[in-house]
Amino acid sequence: MRKRVVLLILFYSFFIQNIWSQGESYGEYNLMPWPKEIKQTASKFLINSNLTISINRTDKSRVHNAAVSFLRRLANRTGVFIDNGFPLQGKVSTSIEINFDTLSNLTIHDDESYSLIVNEDKIIIQAISDVGALRALETLLQLVDHNGDDYFFQGASIQDSPRFVWRGLMIDVARHFQPVRVIKRNLDAMASVKLNVFHWHLTDDQGFRVESKIYPKLQDASSDGLYYTQDQIKDIVNYASNLGIRVIPEFDVPGHASAILTAYPELSSKKDYTYTIERYAGIFDPTLDPTNDNTYIFLKNLFTEIAPLFPDAYFHIGGDENEGKHWDENPTIQKFKKQHDLKTNHDLQTYFNIKLEKILRGLDKKLMGWDEIMTPNMPTTAVIHSWRGENEGMPKGGSLISAAKKGYQTVLSNGYYIDRMLSVKHHYSIDPIGDIQLTAAERKRVLGGEATMWSELVTPLTIDSRIWPRTAAIAERFWSAKEINDIDNMLIRLKDVNNKLEELGITHLRNKEVILRNISNHKNNKALKTLSNLCEPLKMYSRNKGGTEYKTYSPFTLFADACIVDAPDAMRFNKIASKLEEEISILEIKKYFKTWSNNYKDLHPILHNPNVKPLKALSQNLSSVSRILLEAISSKKVTQSNLNVLKASLLILKEPIIDVELTIVDSLEQITEFCETNYLIK
Amino acid sequence: MRKRVVLLILFYSFFIQNIWSQGESYGEYNLMPWPKEIKQTASKFLINSNLTISINRTDKSRVHNAAVSFLRRLANRTGVFIDNGFPLQGKVSTSIEINFDTLSNLTIHDDESYSLIVNEDKIIIQAISDVGALRALETLLQLVDHNGDDYFFQGASIQDSPRFVWRGLMIDVARHFQPVRVIKRNLDAMASVKLNVFHWHLTDDQGFRVESKIYPKLQDASSDGLYYTQDQIKDIVNYASNLGIRVIPEFDVPGHASAILTAYPELSSKKDYTYTIERYAGIFDPTLDPTNDNTYIFLKNLFTEIAPLFPDAYFHIGGDENEGKHWDENPTIQKFKKQHDLKTNHDLQTYFNIKLEKILRGLDKKLMGWDEIMTPNMPTTAVIHSWRGENEGMPKGGSLISAAKKGYQTVLSNGYYIDRMLSVKHHYSIDPIGDIQLTAAERKRVLGGEATMWSELVTPLTIDSRIWPRTAAIAERFWSAKEINDIDNMLIRLKDVNNKLEELGITHLRNKEVILRNISNHKNNKALKTLSNLCEPLKMYSRNKGGTEYKTYSPFTLFADACIVDAPDAMRFNKIASKLEEEISILEIKKYFKTWSNNYKDLHPILHNPNVKPLKALSQNLSSVSRILLEAISSKKVTQSNLNVLKASLLILKEPIIDVELTIVDSLEQITEFCETNYLIK
Repeated sequence: MRKRVVLLILFYSFFIQNIWSQGESYGEYNLMPWPKEIKQTASKFLINSNLTISINRTDKSRVHNAAVSFLRRLANRTGVFIDNGFPLQGKVSTSIEINFDTLSNLTIHDDESYSLIVNEDKIIIQAISDVGALRALETLLQLVDHNGDDYFFQGASIQDSPRFVWRGLMIDVARHFQPVRVIKRNLDAMASVKLNVFHWHLTDDQGFRVESKIYPKLQDASSDGLYYTQDQIKDIVNYASNLGIRVIPEFDVPGHASAILTAYPELSSKKDYTYTIERYAGIFDPTLDPTNDNTYIFLKNLFTEIAPLFPDAYFHIGGDENEGKHWDENPTIQKFKKQHDLKTNHDLQTYFNIKLEKILRGLDKKLMGWDEIMTPNMPTTAVIHSWRGENEGMPKGGSLISAAKKGYQTVLSNGYYIDRMLSVKHHYSIDPIGDIQLTAAERKRVLGGEATMWSELVTPLTIDSRIWPRTAAIAERFWSAKEINDIDNMLIRLKDVNNKLEELGITHLRNKEVILRNISNHKNNKALKTLSNLCEPLKMYSRNKGGTEYKTYSPFTLFADACIVDAPDAMRFNKIASKLEEEISILEIKKYFKTWSNNYKDLHPILHNPNVKPLKALSQNLSSVSRILLEAISSKKVTQSNLNVLKASLLILKEPIIDVELTIVDSLEQITEFCETNYLIK
Repeated sequence: MRKRVVLLILFYSFFIQNIWSQGESYGEYNLMPWPKEIKQTASKFLINSNLTISINRTDKSRVHNAAVSFLRRLANRTGVFIDNGFPLQGKVSTSIEINFDTLSNLTIHDDESYSLIVNEDKIIIQAISDVGALRALETLLQLVDHNGDDYFFQGASIQDSPRFVWRGLMIDVARHFQPVRVIKRNLDAMASVKLNVFHWHLTDDQGFRVESKIYPKLQDASSDGLYYTQDQIKDIVNYASNLGIRVIPEFDVPGHASAILTAYPELSSKKDYTYTIERYAGIFDPTLDPTNDNTYIFLKNLFTEIAPLFPDAYFHIGGDENEGKHWDENPTIQKFKKQHDLKTNHDLQTYFNIKLEKILRGLDKKLMGWDEIMTPNMPTTAVIHSWRGENEGMPKGGSLISAAKKGYQTVLSNGYYIDRMLSVKHHYSIDPIGDIQLTAAERKRVLGGEATMWSELVTPLTIDSRIWPRTAAIAERFWSAKEINDIDNMLIRLKDVNNKLEELGITHLRNKEVILRNISNHKNNKALKTLSNLCEPLKMYSRNKGGTEYKTYSPFTLFADACIVDAPDAMRFNKIASKLEEEISILEIKKYFKTWSNNYKDLHPILHNPNVKPLKALSQNLSSVSRILLEAISSKKVTQSNLNVLKASLLILKEPIIDVELTIVDSLEQITEFCETNYLIK
């Protein structure tokens, strides 16, 4: 952990909620999310075997668990043999003292603020609630640094609290089931960047993932045996609660219902239809029948059974992407619409949602749904989950701002669809509110946001590398002030956070190696790895056109699955490629070209492999381009014929191949143009 | 997967139970355990999207689950998009046809035999029981190979059945708790090498890991919150059953009882004593009081509650390493001994065991215990788990053979203590029966063996790299004929098995990288990795002298934890170092020396790290020795002064450092001697 001088832009802002001072100093901290106020202190706290922790309250709270976990992570990260492996309770003098007043019930009204002071001989955490103390412990772990001999906590005085109360990650476990272990490790990672809402997308066309004792066919017929038992759900909810994370379940209705209707076709809108669990991705027609009383009996019974597993006040019913095709085709439903003066399918869905809202109200739950539920008649007790913004043809501010203005509580996911495989820079740059003026009441209704991990193309092997590290930057967007938005600075800190995620069991780094080893049959895969650090998976769902290239059980152990968004070498190369006037860039560029020139030669021994073979042209042309450009830059000369070869190769390199794209092609082209302009032998 | 010509020794043996024919052909198969009979067929079966599987029975059995899992593993390993992701049931024509007659109850009487025929257009599996069919599917997955274009199954005709009925792995979850995910992935790995018994060491001085509803203090006071709920136990037992694996629980009594007595000190043999969960390793004094009726009431109630969670007929009560110190110190117990004519503590323990045996018999369980329970009065209904052999001062054949001869069923673990960190060659060479002559009845009582993973020095991060791959070779010892014992051949096949374990989630390869990345703070750790492939953790418990160097919560993320037994580069180097007369060896040795000469230079950038720094002397001396030897071998000359440097460095390299030893020192010394003899400039 090299100390980094993080140059922060000086801010003198008097934003309504956040006043911070980190701009006044400049730090060498790898904190993420960046705190509200931080002052550097000259001292540092040495980590040795004598380190002790005390908690002011004697009741075994979530802080006790967090402190134990803190001690384990600290020991494992630093290798220090800490004598006392458990926190002391009550008023005792210890190195780290944790003080808080209340035990949180985990609602949107909880206070997560804390102060953290690291001095040479004492570390003090003060918080209103236990959850605030948890947040402080995570900050403290981000202050661990070392010199040649010792590990220590960097000195600092921090005052911190979040900008938004709802900072979430949604995981879709329907398209690809994610076992308990995947959820737990991601909850740990969420807590490490102070996310506080786990939105659990539990049902969809591809599977129903919750055990129902009263409707057992839901899991027996519609999960392939891949579902959570009620005990596992309780276990996860409890695990999340210990981390100060609320759990919001989503049961997607009335659309996205193939799995439900495979089990109970009698609730469907189209009777002469064979319902089966969907194996492809996309938007499908199977829909619950909103005109059938049994639908409501089923949902009421089901939710009455399920709701107690989830203590949170919010309950997500999906409600998205129902195109009503089966409603249009059903004369009874058409007749019902007329009888009830429901002009459109949207009106019919609102009718359905209002009935649901009542059922949930009876269970002490607030209905939440994707933004399609925001129709004129929908009561404002509903919570609008905004997934459509200006990019989806909505007016400025998207459905989020509309909802807030109309009186709904609302949560933003538009802009945070991490499954689209867009750069972290993109997500980080999206502010939920931006420059839109809201009244205090409207602002208060904007609860926050959620990153969404739809799982059509991810499995337990790969999901972590799709969620992380980008979600850490999104977490900062939700926690930190709007003005904390320097991308270069964020990228430096993100790198460190990315590495630390390993200690929580996040598999994003290790499983990349697993995939590459498998593809290369455990032969030397250095060259394959080099390519994987330059290529990114296809973006915006173009990997799975029409949703029919991959089935749920297709292999996700391919080269594309080893590649990640923001391919690290590509990021670096693209940054320096535009600085051809700087000698230091030229040196680094030449080093890259030298490595890449050999790629084809290095890859050759494993090309005798069905899953490496398709990379032949990519490797060959990359090597060829690199060789010519290396020569051109070194000699400051390039022939027309070499230029022609370059251009032909670049055309090939531009084409996506086995679901990845080479993300340095623009830079290569730029360097080629530079050589043409400056070095062409005429 | 390069094809390997596996040269098998020709066997013409007419051993009583096993007749095999693999010696007649010679294969290119990476099978482990090696089957009883295998004939190579000329054809191979191409794996493409049309591949289908059928099962002859329509009931959803464990074979259905196994076939689904087979299809997923096949797709993920090969990258082939198999159209039909599920097995068909009943009499249909498919590429792979599975036929079996009975559903196994998982007892020691089950038939695990199978035949497997791979032809060009059809693969047929025939088995008596469903478990036999499972074993066949694992063999079939080991036949996957590829050429430049395609993956295929190698053609073969196999008849197979095991030598021993009891082929186990014990995992100690008391010293370090191992969560559900660790157990499940290891069960998957066990099934892949046809192990069929999971022995679950659930309680010890360091923790009680099972939820008891009638004695909740057991988990509340004595587990640090790290225990299995009864639902999790059911889940694991069911998971194991689906893999054809029996689960034997162990509740270690009357010794190893600190955790039980922390919860219920009233059952102890020493009253004025503070019982706490033990944080160190070793043999401790806390012992249940065998003269107290409440002890038996407690055990009867506990076992009555727990036994139904474990459907297997065998129930392990530990019974080992009770030195009776607290019995000696307790006058009431002394008095009791006199009253009941129990002369020694062993007699008293037998008294205890006999009462336990009755309790368990009442629960339809057979008592099993470590070999200390084999005292003269112990009824032969007990099963003797032999952990002491000739190396523990026992007569020839150890307690295993004594037990068999005395009429006990018996299982061998002596020789298979994988926590001792001994080479796979050692374990593989140990035959349970060896050359001892047994009667048919005695032979039948030797049920088999178990590898034992005691967990004092392993955590979920490292346990897989301690269990695997050595346990795969031990599995072969238990399954295959005694005469399958060629070590070089085993090592070739083991390498392939080792790699394939990754697809089952075994983390032995990936977590090594995690540890090295952490130690080096995610800087370039190539040099560190080089060292880790030459060093092995200290053996035979010398890593943790007296059990007091490490507490249960000490860090196990150190360099020693990244190192493994049979360090791969060391294995290779030691093999070629003795062949200095062969030009091809010299070339390879020089290549190693060249890399190692640079080790100190390469390590330098990360030496500024508290956990790398202690390796400085090792790296420096390795580099120095390598440089000098490289020069000596190349020039065929060495000076006396360089020889002196070599010898001084070798002395340093011989010393263990941060819990590892450099396992090429003998070879380096040998090469030094060679140079001194042949190249010294006089």
